[in-house]
Amino acid sequence: MYKHTPVALLILFSFFSTNLCCVEASNSSVIIMEIGDTITAATADLVEEAVRHGEEVGAEALVIILDTPGGQLDSTFKIIDAIERSNLPVVSFVYPKGAKAWSAGTLILIGSHVAAMAPHTIIGSAQPVSYSPFGESEPVTESKVLNALSQFITERARMYGRNETAARLFITENLNLNNDDALRLNIIDVQASDISSLLSWKCTRCDQIFNRPACLPK
Amino acid sequence: MYKHTPVALLILFSFFSTNLCCVEASNSSVIIMEIGDTITAATADLVEEAVRHGEEVGAEALVIILDTPGGQLDSTFKIIDAIERSNLPVVSFVYPKGAKAWSAGTLILIGSHVAAMAPHTIIGSAQPVSYSPFGESEPVTESKVLNALSQFITERARMYGRNETAARLFITENLNLNNDDALRLNIIDVQASDISSLLSWKCTRCDQIFNRPACLPK
Repeated sequence: MYKHTPVALLILFSFFSTNLCCVEASNSSVIIMEIGDTITAATADLVEEAVRHGEEVGAEALVIILDTPGGQLDSTFKIIDAIERSNLPVVSFVYPKGAKAWSAGTLILIGSHVAAMAPHTIIGSAQPVSYSPFGESEPVTESKVLNALSQFITERARMYGRNETAARLFITENLNLNNDDALRLNIIDVQASDISSLLSWKCTRCDQIFNRPACLPK
Repeated sequence: MYKHTPVALLILFSFFSTNLCCVEASNSSVIIMEIGDTITAATADLVEEAVRHGEEVGAEALVIILDTPGGQLDSTFKIIDAIERSNLPVVSFVYPKGAKAWSAGTLILIGSHVAAMAPHTIIGSAQPVSYSPFGESEPVTESKVLNALSQFITERARMYGRNETAARLFITENLNLNNDDALRLNIIDVQASDISSLLSWKCTRCDQIFNRPACLPK
């Protein structure tokens, strides 16, 4: 019997190709990029590049649009680290209406300076899965992985003042929430119907993010 | 059926390449090196070299910055031995904010003269894993390995006056802790937000380390 090895944070039934990212600088110097598919090493590279570019051009924020079934865990860590170490505010936004940020997408949302969701979007199901060399998958149940990942996301929730219990339940119970419940339970900061209304939202906890008077462009 | 052989202390979902170490001598003669990836034989060589170099130049301390998913068990033993036999104080520091020193990283932290963590960092999940020739992994459950490793880390905790029970639980229960809990439970000596504030911390138990009036540079 072989064991399953590479661990991923992916909803099992989602096997899109990797074809996902665009980075654009708008007039108002907000960088907008999209994670619209499975999260891979290429996604992490693009997020790191977007952060670097945003810092170089003095952008006011980076907005990451999430509509993803999840993806590789090590790439997810790299993305969350890049967000944490960024000198510009990073806003993750589950968008458009009907979008999902499952599994790794949920972790990226929780690990962002500002977390936003559009109406009728969902997050959750973040128990990791492992893959055999033959591509077969199964949920990871080992305490070594689950405890580490639970502590990791709980600490990120604490870092940004989010609901630590719900953060842990995404891993341990595959909790799923829609945008209304995510806001009510203090997982996200704001609901917005589109990017324009997201960018007009005034962040009231900016001093917790970068000690700046404003963390999002007005 | 094949057997899983090489034993590692690694969070399974992390498969970074080995690209990690820099050794720098600062003006204040503190050597700073970084373990920012998986711990391998090369990491152990670099730690041994850093200790040797620090002793040769009469450095005041070696600071090992940890942000690692863990790594090879034999290399971890070599690193902990090198620290123990060093003639200069070795300070392990989980840094920066958001960093993790899982598995082998936790053992190195416990086995250092001074253990420090930055805010929002985590440690734990130190049950060893084994690998098949095909790279598949599974947690080690054999008492031969677990008892030996538990005793090893408990003894290191006793050596440095740390919490022996928590040290053992990192192995046997995959305990995870953040920096606040690690300080409260007497696993670490100090919390510091950056290297500068770490180096300004005055160690009060120096005579237990090297019979010197001060173990860390002022």
